[in-house]
Amino acid sequence: MGSSAPVLGCRAMDAATFRRLGHRLVDWVADYRETLEARPVMSPSKPGEIRRRFPTSPPREGGRMDEAVAQLDTHVMPGITHWNHPSFFAYFPSNTTYASILADIVASGLGVQGMSWQTSPAATEVEEVTMDWLRQIVGLSTAFTGVVHDTASTATLCALLCAREKVSGFAQNGKGLQSGEAPLVVYASDQGHSSIEKAALLAGFGKDHLRLIATDDDHALRLDLLERAVAKDLAAGLRPCALVAAIGTTGTTAVDPLVGMADVAARHGLWLHVDAALAGTAMALPECRYLWEGVERADSVVFNPHKWMGVGFDFSAYYVRDPEHLIRVMSTNPSYLRTAHDSEVRNFRDWHIQLGRRFRSLKLWFFLVDEGVDALETRLRRDLENAQWLKVQVDTAAGWERLAPVPLQTVCVRHVPKEIAHDEAALATHNLAIARRVNESGNAYLTPSVLKGKQMLRLSIGSATTERRHVEALWSVLNAAAASAT
Amino acid sequence: MGSSAPVLGCRAMDAATFRRLGHRLVDWVADYRETLEARPVMSPSKPGEIRRRFPTSPPREGGRMDEAVAQLDTHVMPGITHWNHPSFFAYFPSNTTYASILADIVASGLGVQGMSWQTSPAATEVEEVTMDWLRQIVGLSTAFTGVVHDTASTATLCALLCAREKVSGFAQNGKGLQSGEAPLVVYASDQGHSSIEKAALLAGFGKDHLRLIATDDDHALRLDLLERAVAKDLAAGLRPCALVAAIGTTGTTAVDPLVGMADVAARHGLWLHVDAALAGTAMALPECRYLWEGVERADSVVFNPHKWMGVGFDFSAYYVRDPEHLIRVMSTNPSYLRTAHDSEVRNFRDWHIQLGRRFRSLKLWFFLVDEGVDALETRLRRDLENAQWLKVQVDTAAGWERLAPVPLQTVCVRHVPKEIAHDEAALATHNLAIARRVNESGNAYLTPSVLKGKQMLRLSIGSATTERRHVEALWSVLNAAAASAT
Repeated sequence: MGSSAPVLGCRAMDAATFRRLGHRLVDWVADYRETLEARPVMSPSKPGEIRRRFPTSPPREGGRMDEAVAQLDTHVMPGITHWNHPSFFAYFPSNTTYASILADIVASGLGVQGMSWQTSPAATEVEEVTMDWLRQIVGLSTAFTGVVHDTASTATLCALLCAREKVSGFAQNGKGLQSGEAPLVVYASDQGHSSIEKAALLAGFGKDHLRLIATDDDHALRLDLLERAVAKDLAAGLRPCALVAAIGTTGTTAVDPLVGMADVAARHGLWLHVDAALAGTAMALPECRYLWEGVERADSVVFNPHKWMGVGFDFSAYYVRDPEHLIRVMSTNPSYLRTAHDSEVRNFRDWHIQLGRRFRSLKLWFFLVDEGVDALETRLRRDLENAQWLKVQVDTAAGWERLAPVPLQTVCVRHVPKEIAHDEAALATHNLAIARRVNESGNAYLTPSVLKGKQMLRLSIGSATTERRHVEALWSVLNAAAASAT
Repeated sequence: MGSSAPVLGCRAMDAATFRRLGHRLVDWVADYRETLEARPVMSPSKPGEIRRRFPTSPPREGGRMDEAVAQLDTHVMPGITHWNHPSFFAYFPSNTTYASILADIVASGLGVQGMSWQTSPAATEVEEVTMDWLRQIVGLSTAFTGVVHDTASTATLCALLCAREKVSGFAQNGKGLQSGEAPLVVYASDQGHSSIEKAALLAGFGKDHLRLIATDDDHALRLDLLERAVAKDLAAGLRPCALVAAIGTTGTTAVDPLVGMADVAARHGLWLHVDAALAGTAMALPECRYLWEGVERADSVVFNPHKWMGVGFDFSAYYVRDPEHLIRVMSTNPSYLRTAHDSEVRNFRDWHIQLGRRFRSLKLWFFLVDEGVDALETRLRRDLENAQWLKVQVDTAAGWERLAPVPLQTVCVRHVPKEIAHDEAALATHNLAIARRVNESGNAYLTPSVLKGKQMLRLSIGSATTERRHVEALWSVLNAAAASAT
């Protein structure tokens, strides 16, 4: 403590500099968005190229913000893969709308912690309001209460933890999973997202107690195999615990048979968790809601407004039927977190794993008042129609094969030249070559993936900027790549 | 899919509107920061007051951003507790500097996912560079590799999961914690953060296998009791697994005896996790590093640059000795996430629970080039000296009692009027009344908390805007509240 250095106080940037640089960066973002289309979608950077532009030790002296802002263009942009590009067809649409960028300026500027109601009542109550709006938008009943999570991975982990504690009678307050009692078992489709397996392993169930049920030709979970697996586990003295239904799998947007799964869950006392990470957004369209018929019987539902909808990452919507159970699993109640109003309000710190929380609901609020539900519906219908258009092209073109139904906005295809039509290894090499060619061209970005042994090209439509002409261009690029890769 | 509505495409805000509103919100943030001091620190809002200002259903028509921006002042601000206020002495300093707000504009504006290297190489490599800078700043050796987590709660959960898998020989790939083998046990101080208990319960250990070791008069873990607990568990056939050392507990910034704990950990093969959530920032000061002597023997270390340091929430720094182990615990490797460069690069999705990731390292970069390490050191020394000044006032004033040493920036006190000096219940009522009076006055915000049965007032100094005069004012406010509460 005995420093002899003069105490200068905080050498923070002053407000005038913040205003100047803030305006400059807002314009920089707008310039970026306006020139997105001209950029190569996937970064052409090689490993280490970005890292080498930076010094290896931190600056002793500050005041270099102008330099850093300039380095965004020289040092950072070459290493950016453009997720909001109209020709981004990889992974999932991750729309970060202008409105949600504006909301983030406010959230960061306020810099509040919404862990408890008292630590900023608005953070809790704007979340209550907007998550209820979102519940109405996707057609869930008032039986569900929503909370903002960061990602579906953590929400699904929470769901499995809630399942574990419900079926074990709150074992965490005793011996946890180390009681020596009959093991708990988790069930999901073998096409479910990797986060389900990850959650089951992190929650301590063990891979031996995770059943990844095989799927039908449409890549949806086979109910007969699920029933058989549950029966076998019961006969072996195990305790079926949780069932995860994928409404729109990551690989192909396959839709698990939710009504039948809800029957199985009800019969055996399983926690039913619905993972609609991408597809949940489509439920804004009444004509799509048949896809999750049965959702009202779920114990928990997660979907990601930070994907197709337009709320910037990270923003995952987690809806539960029994908030008291969630709180009982997630809360600790140390004295330094107790406040006077605890009995009258929600303290969202007890609704997930993290304690601290950003004011994320501002993003949902700004997004919805800017876009409005009508325009959201119109945009989603545009994307569904674009996917149907592409499906027709694939189905009617020689040499192309479609590998899955197209209930939503993802089209899974491969190119099958006659000469190698029966040689899976050659087809894999050929299609990987197409993917590499397309991605390295910078003209479009897609995800190569393997579906039941078949190398496919996964084309995920739904960037807010993607118009029909971009999907048409994708189809041309694919055909050119296929021709030159042959 | 058969909508007859005209397809309008995306009715997103146009770039010109974004520029206009973006500039306006940057100025709004600057105005807010410049008027912070005049605002009541704790929101005076009553439960439901904010919620009632909003409609109960979402807008069908969009285009209402100007209205929403205006509602920030009328609907949201009354419900804000001002975490960056110079008289914020509650919980922990949560400095969101101008530089990190600017970085968030860029991160949101780019809207990239840094889950894999290829999905934006810059997101991975800027993180590698800046997390290595941060490692140097706090004096950790090159034996540690850093990754950005969101919060210490999730980082500590990761640490306990890594411990669980190390000691169990990767049980997650078999029966998980449900093998019936000897239970694994976690050890920490009874003054450790609630997130440690939460993590142990979520990881499946069970409360019966969590030992919260009692502390000494300085509120640091008692090594003799730790050794006794480990010996007792070994004798009972249990398996000691993980040991969490708190460097700066949440309650009082007590410092656990890390060297002795490292000895115990080494002797019994325990995973040693260091939770320096708040205090890690102080390690930027060479004169503070004695506080975590022994840290080089830890398996994992977490601290929060989003607290005292100035990187806006959420930004937790997690350092590990063995990244391969972390990856083995956290990774799943589905085909849709594999990319061509996987063997040459880091895919940070495999370094934590979440899959998706914001470009958070921009915040650390901008913060460091703006403030510089020299000015950071000066500011931290200012805060330490302010805490020492307050400590002296408390120690030399009649009627006040200090309940813990002050190694850092937190001062734990209570007011003890002679008439009720031996009546704990009356003292609790009296000090809670002081806390309520101070907090409701809006002049300062502090956290009432209970320390070993004693109701205390926890005064946490370190907002970037807090000068000596604010601490002097706090001391006056406390004395006035104590006098009028008597």
